[in-house]
Amino acid sequence: MSSAEKTKRLVIVGGVAAGMSAAARARRLDPDLEIVAYERTGYVSYGACGLPYLIAGVVPKAADLIARTPEQFAKQGIEVRTRHEVTAIDSSNKSVQVLDLEGGREFTTSYDRLVIATGASPIRPPMPGTELEGVFVLRSVEDGIAVTRFLAEEQPTRVVIIGGGYIGVEAAEAFAQRGLQATVLTRPAQLLNILDDDIAQMMQAELERNGVVVSVDDVAQAIESDARGRARVVVSQSGRHEADLVLIGAGVSAESALAEDAGIALGVKGAIAVDEKMQTNVPDVYAAGDCAETYHVLLGGSSYVPLGSTANKQGRVAGTNVGGGNAAFGGVVGTTITKAFELGVAVTGLTEKMARQLGRPAKAVKIEHGSRAHYYPSPGPISVKLVWDPGDGRLLGAQIAGPVAEAKRVDVLATALHHGLTIEDLQRLDLSYAPPFAPVWDPILVAANVAAKS
Amino acid sequence: MSSAEKTKRLVIVGGVAAGMSAAARARRLDPDLEIVAYERTGYVSYGACGLPYLIAGVVPKAADLIARTPEQFAKQGIEVRTRHEVTAIDSSNKSVQVLDLEGGREFTTSYDRLVIATGASPIRPPMPGTELEGVFVLRSVEDGIAVTRFLAEEQPTRVVIIGGGYIGVEAAEAFAQRGLQATVLTRPAQLLNILDDDIAQMMQAELERNGVVVSVDDVAQAIESDARGRARVVVSQSGRHEADLVLIGAGVSAESALAEDAGIALGVKGAIAVDEKMQTNVPDVYAAGDCAETYHVLLGGSSYVPLGSTANKQGRVAGTNVGGGNAAFGGVVGTTITKAFELGVAVTGLTEKMARQLGRPAKAVKIEHGSRAHYYPSPGPISVKLVWDPGDGRLLGAQIAGPVAEAKRVDVLATALHHGLTIEDLQRLDLSYAPPFAPVWDPILVAANVAAKS
Repeated sequence: MSSAEKTKRLVIVGGVAAGMSAAARARRLDPDLEIVAYERTGYVSYGACGLPYLIAGVVPKAADLIARTPEQFAKQGIEVRTRHEVTAIDSSNKSVQVLDLEGGREFTTSYDRLVIATGASPIRPPMPGTELEGVFVLRSVEDGIAVTRFLAEEQPTRVVIIGGGYIGVEAAEAFAQRGLQATVLTRPAQLLNILDDDIAQMMQAELERNGVVVSVDDVAQAIESDARGRARVVVSQSGRHEADLVLIGAGVSAESALAEDAGIALGVKGAIAVDEKMQTNVPDVYAAGDCAETYHVLLGGSSYVPLGSTANKQGRVAGTNVGGGNAAFGGVVGTTITKAFELGVAVTGLTEKMARQLGRPAKAVKIEHGSRAHYYPSPGPISVKLVWDPGDGRLLGAQIAGPVAEAKRVDVLATALHHGLTIEDLQRLDLSYAPPFAPVWDPILVAANVAAKS
Repeated sequence: MSSAEKTKRLVIVGGVAAGMSAAARARRLDPDLEIVAYERTGYVSYGACGLPYLIAGVVPKAADLIARTPEQFAKQGIEVRTRHEVTAIDSSNKSVQVLDLEGGREFTTSYDRLVIATGASPIRPPMPGTELEGVFVLRSVEDGIAVTRFLAEEQPTRVVIIGGGYIGVEAAEAFAQRGLQATVLTRPAQLLNILDDDIAQMMQAELERNGVVVSVDDVAQAIESDARGRARVVVSQSGRHEADLVLIGAGVSAESALAEDAGIALGVKGAIAVDEKMQTNVPDVYAAGDCAETYHVLLGGSSYVPLGSTANKQGRVAGTNVGGGNAAFGGVVGTTITKAFELGVAVTGLTEKMARQLGRPAKAVKIEHGSRAHYYPSPGPISVKLVWDPGDGRLLGAQIAGPVAEAKRVDVLATALHHGLTIEDLQRLDLSYAPPFAPVWDPILVAANVAAKS
């Protein structure tokens, strides 16, 4: 590059998964690019998915969640400004307005390319008391620090968790491991509403076996305080639930207001609409991660599936394209996984329930089978549920539940879904066999054989 | 069926994996079929792959290896005759000659359909001393019982294992776990010659870390006896190796002499030639399991890959077809897996070495990556090696090595191989992510990303 040529400037809004993934990738492709990332919180490049494990004490301290510090990014030539909030985007002038949350100073800075990676924010249910002391959400490092500090200082013994999704289940395990009596209230008729009921019930049983109280089909209505103004009781349809600490895990919504205000089109569930290059409808503006839509291979269209792994992949695609390369996001098949105590559960593709809701013809089988040769010491059996289209035999989705690590076997079925495999194709898979790893008929093959007969 | 109609008769030669799988499947499809299985040894339906774990003491007793007894088969209407050897097949008269090994009686019996599932037999290297007392192979339940009895009665302290394949490695672990000083002699320049050298070296290091002596590129030449006629020293190119017990694990060859004598065509490595229905060239005669060829998807032709899981699949296909159904064997992609101590290793498809031997253009990368989120307690990193065709980007094979259970991740790549996925396809896979299961970039995705850049 001649010194006369103007250096291009990439501005990144939000420095967690997608944002810093985009930054790192763009840097690798274009060593001359000027890159600056603005992050509202005090931390960048952290593993938000690890927050429940910080509460549990499995992760000793918040700093452990940080993958790379601003100093490390600086060495790569990526400027990171934490506690800086981008408050407006002016796409006609290609600039953003930034508020320094520490100094209070506001300034405008220009970009050639912009990546919006503002993430998602926790939904606070519309009810009284969610702002009381002792009420927490779990999204940022600061949230995690606040909860662990409260645990240490206030020694709470009872926690009520509002919401029975992934965060609710993971937090229930975490608090229980810290010795708290945990109660989970969830509005749907089951925990983990993303799963079929039969699989979700296994998780409910696992939580209950470990002393967690689970109240399904139960709507939280208010959080009441004690005389000192601190959360003390969660009132729900089912009654009054005493609490020293309340965690709200009621899902997240895309942080897309900044984009919307700038005239950038939104799509599914208010997430920023993007094409496969992660471009928005505004030239030179990309979006990636939990603030953006996700292409869903099985739905054949956009969906909103905020997830750390997807955010990193989308960030990488955006970073490749802003760095002068050419990448397309291949979409998701809806693979998610979690654990609590000794149980792992995973899903990929459509559940039976979801297929029904979509009006798609679907059959399903669920089998339970040993995870090792019958004579070999085993962590226990696993359940495999397959959902398929009875017309063409194509797999639509799968769920696995069993001893924690075994749930990772779902990846075989995620791979199958990406490429339209049928039940017959599954039956033919040459999956690895030796007694310490699987029975001679791998549980996935057993499920496929049962499906083929049904 | 009218009573006047003659009942069809299915005869099965060999009652271990393929044979009994065929019998059970045929019974399910055709309740009227008369089914009899002749097995030369005293046991049917056993897990031969579990024999090393019987030696190790992980499987407490030989009977644990039995999946189903002759009595249990009888309840299904399957007649099982153990200690009965089929000595000849007369395909023109559709009959077999059977020798009752207990009673000494020989008789002839007819079949309408015949399934040959005679398995494979251990290769005894052509050298003096292999018939000495204290020299064992590990193939049948009887072999396992003989070794465990010898261990109990003779209290050997030094074992020399001739052969460094799967049986050699698994037996080395087993004997070491029983407190014996184990030495493995192997003719190739590496253990587990089916793997690439870099992965195999990890297994060698793991054995050595656990006190096993490994001598590669070393040909055993003789077994010498003591004054009592018992094996005492294994003489090899590298020197003299004292032994109280010698195990020969020098591979197996298909038991196809019976078929060959009956005019049934043999194929690769002397295994019985079969089509995708598991039919031989002789009408109404099928073959399945370790005595038969295996279609290899990546080689696009027949191969000889004796394996318990394949034997069961082939037996099921043969059983379906002889039972009046219609099934085809989908072939293998060459997936195998094993462990010793804390290390699991697995391969699917072609190794780099194999691709080179076949003259196929191939590139390879190997990465090491964490198996859990960087902040989550982990069993340790895993190595993923990918081999692909640089022309069209198609995956040719993969190897994984790491903490035992992690090696099962190879199944994702086996699934990919069945369906011709490229490196770019792999990059797009929506593999499951949560901190207790994987880093945000799954190691398989990391390997694919590195491959895409190379």
